[in-house]
Amino acid sequence: METIRNFDQLTGHIINNGKVKRIAVACPHDSHSADAIKLASERGIATFTLFGDEAKMRSLGCFDNLPVTMVNEPDIDKAAALAVKAIKDGEADILMKGSINTDNILKAILNKEHGILPKGNVLSHVTVMEVPGREKLIFMSDVAVIPYPNFEQKQQMIKYVLKCCRDFGIERPKIGLIHFTEKVNPKFPNSTDYVQLVEMANKGEFGDCVLDGPIDVRTAFDEETARIKGINSPLGGDADGLIFPNIESGNVFYKTMTYFCRAEIAGVVLGAQCPVVIASRGDSRVSKYSSIALACTIS
Amino acid sequence: METIRNFDQLTGHIINNGKVKRIAVACPHDSHSADAIKLASERGIATFTLFGDEAKMRSLGCFDNLPVTMVNEPDIDKAAALAVKAIKDGEADILMKGSINTDNILKAILNKEHGILPKGNVLSHVTVMEVPGREKLIFMSDVAVIPYPNFEQKQQMIKYVLKCCRDFGIERPKIGLIHFTEKVNPKFPNSTDYVQLVEMANKGEFGDCVLDGPIDVRTAFDEETARIKGINSPLGGDADGLIFPNIESGNVFYKTMTYFCRAEIAGVVLGAQCPVVIASRGDSRVSKYSSIALACTIS
Repeated sequence: METIRNFDQLTGHIINNGKVKRIAVACPHDSHSADAIKLASERGIATFTLFGDEAKMRSLGCFDNLPVTMVNEPDIDKAAALAVKAIKDGEADILMKGSINTDNILKAILNKEHGILPKGNVLSHVTVMEVPGREKLIFMSDVAVIPYPNFEQKQQMIKYVLKCCRDFGIERPKIGLIHFTEKVNPKFPNSTDYVQLVEMANKGEFGDCVLDGPIDVRTAFDEETARIKGINSPLGGDADGLIFPNIESGNVFYKTMTYFCRAEIAGVVLGAQCPVVIASRGDSRVSKYSSIALACTIS
Repeated sequence: METIRNFDQLTGHIINNGKVKRIAVACPHDSHSADAIKLASERGIATFTLFGDEAKMRSLGCFDNLPVTMVNEPDIDKAAALAVKAIKDGEADILMKGSINTDNILKAILNKEHGILPKGNVLSHVTVMEVPGREKLIFMSDVAVIPYPNFEQKQQMIKYVLKCCRDFGIERPKIGLIHFTEKVNPKFPNSTDYVQLVEMANKGEFGDCVLDGPIDVRTAFDEETARIKGINSPLGGDADGLIFPNIESGNVFYKTMTYFCRAEIAGVVLGAQCPVVIASRGDSRVSKYSSIALACTIS
């Protein structure tokens, strides 16, 4: 397949692919979610079943002439449970949260009896970023779900980022394991974790890919910086993806890029039976739509 | 005084001020340091005493017609110790490192007998950033020296950032205490530290200033984001300075801004008897010169 290099290409890719995904949404009571659902329906990339307060949903005036199904359940926790049940019963391919807190939808996902997290799986968030003027996307984890990933969680984060890269047509993704320096120092366990992860990658445990770290954000993207520092990084300043050592650094990258560089982002939680779209209130309409399109591409 | 809004104004401010600072440099054996020293000498903002391998320094061909004094000491640790001694003896106002590792210059600063760290002082790094298109500078700590600041260190970082802001003519600096969300949660001790620090600020313990946190980077700079999130931040999206919770997040901000936004940076270590310029190899010539000018402004 051709590599998807921006969010516009993403929509075309899904439509050409011909597989219309079914999305179960919990509580789309806000106009931002409703707009994104409307756009995705109109463009024909997905069909929707909306679980929530029907009166609130109808009052948004977005869904009138669209092929969406509504299930009236005014209680938000019950609505979340119903959306999760739709996934469990094979009636939907993707889960999405509307205007309920992330904690509430996670509770439904993690529920031991009725949830959709396979035993032993790690839930983690992958963000895809489109930067104006940049000729390809940036994939990263985890800016939202795992605060301080341990070694096992870092492995999963790498696997999820690689999966997304490959589903976007990048055959040999290049991933930077982010630290504040390229020096390895046992005082900073992230740096020694990274050494082990790079060894695993070199043995082929993550499939065809290039992993390098510890490396700083600039060196991951700029060959000139690597040259000045005397670092011979296999990324060659051409990273596709980034693994962040903690939620603070991931969040700073994401917020800095969206504000100062007008980057657009799409995000999805992986690890459950299906991708979960948990776009937040602060996200733009474009971002919410792109998150839906991202989930459709990788599910 | 008029507020200094970019690095160009900084040079004019120092020259108008009329106080030429004396800088002791350890091992300026590289062309980047030499260029910056040359520029600062030519512009008349400082005089220099260079401690290092005289043959190496002369071979750079930069210092021939400049008012610099050279002290030949080929051993780098001894050269660092001599530069520190110049500060201790009152013969210089600012310490600067050339091409020796930060660890080596810190060792000389921290030396119990011959060092220049007053007992109980916290060493911390302050970065000043000029972003193309932005109408004022951004001050921040700590992207380089303190990896995981405790409560006491956070207080000092705030004081150092405030001092720099005020020396640049900002009467009531606005400082954002950076976290990945605005929510306070005891599971994340940074967020509870921040609540206490804001209380201290509100009692006037940091002088005239506005502190807000926990807050994310975007919300610190963008009133619209704050509005969408329903946050009434006293920063009003107009932060002058940022305090980072760890070195990874600070480093990500600094590297992201210099690479993606072409920001220029100046940096200085505070807490010792004098400001210490520890610009690194990867820094540009402009950045090294601006770091010298920064140190001249706040010493």
